[in-house]
Amino acid sequence: MSSFSDADLILPPDGRQSPAALAIQRGVRRHFASLGAVTLCELTLASWRRADVMALLPDGRLTIVEVKSSLADFRADGKWHEYRDWCDSFSFAVAPDFPLEVLPEDAGLIIADAFGAEMLRAAPAHPLAAARRKAVTLRFARAAAGRLHRLADPDGAAGLLD
Amino acid sequence: MSSFSDADLILPPDGRQSPAALAIQRGVRRHFASLGAVTLCELTLASWRRADVMALLPDGRLTIVEVKSSLADFRADGKWHEYRDWCDSFSFAVAPDFPLEVLPEDAGLIIADAFGAEMLRAAPAHPLAAARRKAVTLRFARAAAGRLHRLADPDGAAGLLD
Repeated sequence: MSSFSDADLILPPDGRQSPAALAIQRGVRRHFASLGAVTLCELTLASWRRADVMALLPDGRLTIVEVKSSLADFRADGKWHEYRDWCDSFSFAVAPDFPLEVLPEDAGLIIADAFGAEMLRAAPAHPLAAARRKAVTLRFARAAAGRLHRLADPDGAAGLLD
Repeated sequence: MSSFSDADLILPPDGRQSPAALAIQRGVRRHFASLGAVTLCELTLASWRRADVMALLPDGRLTIVEVKSSLADFRADGKWHEYRDWCDSFSFAVAPDFPLEVLPEDAGLIIADAFGAEMLRAAPAHPLAAARRKAVTLRFARAAAGRLHRLADPDGAAGLLD
């Protein structure tokens, strides 16, 4: 069932993000991992929007981080407020050279590169109702385990969509 | 960040199971995938016992499947009742040539090979209290996403234990 050793196994990016966005994403995930939080990228929500990074904190709270690799990328997103409906807090993550003054002050702010990240402004909390948090957590768990299963047995798990 | 293409990426087994157990596990996971359920193998519970297969059903119910690759393997496990504390239902999964008469009738029974599985006896339901189900679901989500993160960035996610 395997043609290579564990040591060679590095999950490649899925090809949907630019190198700049991938570097920010990687640093953001490292930041959350250092807090004991797990993260999932490109999680499709019930609204069919896709969260760049969804973090599940040790206490069960959910936070969404939208990665903006350029000013144009930020300006093209007029609907970021909608992410609040699916998380307990929301932040933007940008590279160190991003013009920070354009970013809304009512969202968290993370500065990231490929090696780590720093939270420059804490994300305001807007706790989800318990039923919604339960539904998003279930979606998170299903996406994560489904992806692992598809990696282990692509034919057997093909029916498990995110 | 990648040295091979997606097409080559098959997650190898982690080396803790025998080939016979792996075949059963693979078929069991396929069975649950066909029901729209995601599964995770070798999930360590809060009791420090490890579930061979934990399935998360689309409605959020959790079921544990213990794989018994031989009669000796079954007889060595005197504590399977304890798994009930961490799931809404419990089953054994065995190969087609296993002596079924030794298996307890108050547990579910799945016959599996590497290509699929059949539920021979439905697992009796013993619903978890909501708080416990929430905790186990969180553990499931953390283990799945942590494993994915370690695959994508072994150094960055090293601190995320199951």
